[in-house]
Amino acid sequence: MSDAADGKDDSGTVLAVDVGGTKLASGIVDREGNVVRCDRVPTPSGDGEAVWETLVELVDRVRDGAPVAGCGVGCGGPMRWPAGEVSPLNIPGWRDFPLRERLVAHLGCEVRLHNDAVCLAVAEHWRGAARGHDNTLGMVVSTGVGGGLILGGRLIDGATGNAGHVGHVVVDPDGPACSCGGRGCLEAVASGPRLTAWARQHGWTGTTAVDLAGDARAGDATAQEAFRRAGHALGVGIASVAAVCDLSMVVVGGGVMGSDDLLRDALVNALRAHARLDFLARLTVVAPALGEFSGLVGAAAMVLAGDRYWSGQGAGTAAATLTP
Amino acid sequence: MSDAADGKDDSGTVLAVDVGGTKLASGIVDREGNVVRCDRVPTPSGDGEAVWETLVELVDRVRDGAPVAGCGVGCGGPMRWPAGEVSPLNIPGWRDFPLRERLVAHLGCEVRLHNDAVCLAVAEHWRGAARGHDNTLGMVVSTGVGGGLILGGRLIDGATGNAGHVGHVVVDPDGPACSCGGRGCLEAVASGPRLTAWARQHGWTGTTAVDLAGDARAGDATAQEAFRRAGHALGVGIASVAAVCDLSMVVVGGGVMGSDDLLRDALVNALRAHARLDFLARLTVVAPALGEFSGLVGAAAMVLAGDRYWSGQGAGTAAATLTP
Repeated sequence: MSDAADGKDDSGTVLAVDVGGTKLASGIVDREGNVVRCDRVPTPSGDGEAVWETLVELVDRVRDGAPVAGCGVGCGGPMRWPAGEVSPLNIPGWRDFPLRERLVAHLGCEVRLHNDAVCLAVAEHWRGAARGHDNTLGMVVSTGVGGGLILGGRLIDGATGNAGHVGHVVVDPDGPACSCGGRGCLEAVASGPRLTAWARQHGWTGTTAVDLAGDARAGDATAQEAFRRAGHALGVGIASVAAVCDLSMVVVGGGVMGSDDLLRDALVNALRAHARLDFLARLTVVAPALGEFSGLVGAAAMVLAGDRYWSGQGAGTAAATLTP
Repeated sequence: MSDAADGKDDSGTVLAVDVGGTKLASGIVDREGNVVRCDRVPTPSGDGEAVWETLVELVDRVRDGAPVAGCGVGCGGPMRWPAGEVSPLNIPGWRDFPLRERLVAHLGCEVRLHNDAVCLAVAEHWRGAARGHDNTLGMVVSTGVGGGLILGGRLIDGATGNAGHVGHVVVDPDGPACSCGGRGCLEAVASGPRLTAWARQHGWTGTTAVDLAGDARAGDATAQEAFRRAGHALGVGIASVAAVCDLSMVVVGGGVMGSDDLLRDALVNALRAHARLDFLARLTVVAPALGEFSGLVGAAAMVLAGDRYWSGQGAGTAAATLTP
């Protein structure tokens, strides 16, 4: 039965939201995981309420008055989970911003929110490259290195909802300092900004990771070495997680992986050198199968396939009492 | 209703078996996790059938004709899981030995078998130091470095039943060669044999890890450094797993941890240096709470609390068709 009167339905169509530092996206996703329609806008700079107003306009436009069974949201971290109070690194106006509570109040339906890298991992497991691989790490190698962990066919949340932080696996205990305060984390070697920073320290004079990739392809030895180091670090980090979690697949996406051609040999060589246990013989590392809206698909999956991808310990229900 | 006619009952009492390279243990465990009675014998050397005969005599003596609701078994790896065909490194007579199938045929009840380090982790979560910590790594640092992973309150098996192989997390990519064929694995630095091997390479003239600990406590700088290196490697490995799995507790046991006094400072310092993410602030590393029969408790838990600790994908049921 549809219950359009209060904007909810049980047709299985959900609203999905993806909050990033450069763009806000929203879509309607059907129960097969198809993005029926979607739209996006640049993330405004400025204060938190301006970001919120822009998001609400986008969401209302995409929803267009249609009933939805629930709402799934992916958002940059860190955040309090499952409460959904978010402090995205790239949205300075939001610090402990009660995004989930605001959306519950605005939409009048249950809202489930998780880290955007977690949503990408969920999407790839639910409808993408890792379909059928119930022990998978999904990774995003970009301005940071994040991820999500699927084990036993379920999303793993960990003690505080932060499972999947593969960027802080130690790949070189004496390596470069990391923004987390640690040293030798995967992110401190392989993220885009750290790739270019390393290259500049070694004489390269460009600015962006895209430039660095262009120079590497044109034969610049320092640029090539920067990507080789990143690929090696990715291979070491993947080998460690694969051993302790017994993975059969790792999906690696994100902007830096647009330079897969420059990274892959070093990644594969490191994996061959370090992932030697018999049970890892069939481990495969692949690119994501879903496109730019995979974040929306993963966000929707938390509602549409909540038995596997949502263990938010009653947060949705508790929050529903906040609905006006 | 008890059904003693075929040796099964529903009183919740189970038979537990722990197969190690030096001893075989068996016990009756009640549904609260108490070891009601138990016994053990040295593991015989020699051919596989001799080991089997010794195990069967032990099990029959411990069982003493009592009805049991099922049987849980911990055994050294590697093994085919959940089939339970075992090839324990320290029992050369068993290679692809069909231990689970043999026990099913002998006992006439369901048998659930897992890695012995996994059983220790399960025991500590079910009735030991990690009770209430639903995101826990249990580790055994001994002749090897093994473990078991509890996430979301459930035992994680991974793609092939090998999740928990924390000994092969890479703690130093350029470190010593490991028996797995890799390099710089935690086990290659911190296991008992590798500790003593390193010390001998650096001028120490003793033999066992116990001697090494004695010499370290007596002030031998090389012996002290061997333990410091191991503690550091343990801290780095724990930091990596804690980040990607969002652990709140790690339980570390095994023979080498008998020298906790020699390891702990280096372990804690490495953890402080590398586990810097906010969500890891409350991570605690503790010793096991259960004694020498914790392997039996964990083995029993796979039957007594199978909803959390057994996902053997119908193996028990399938195998039951083998019962004569």
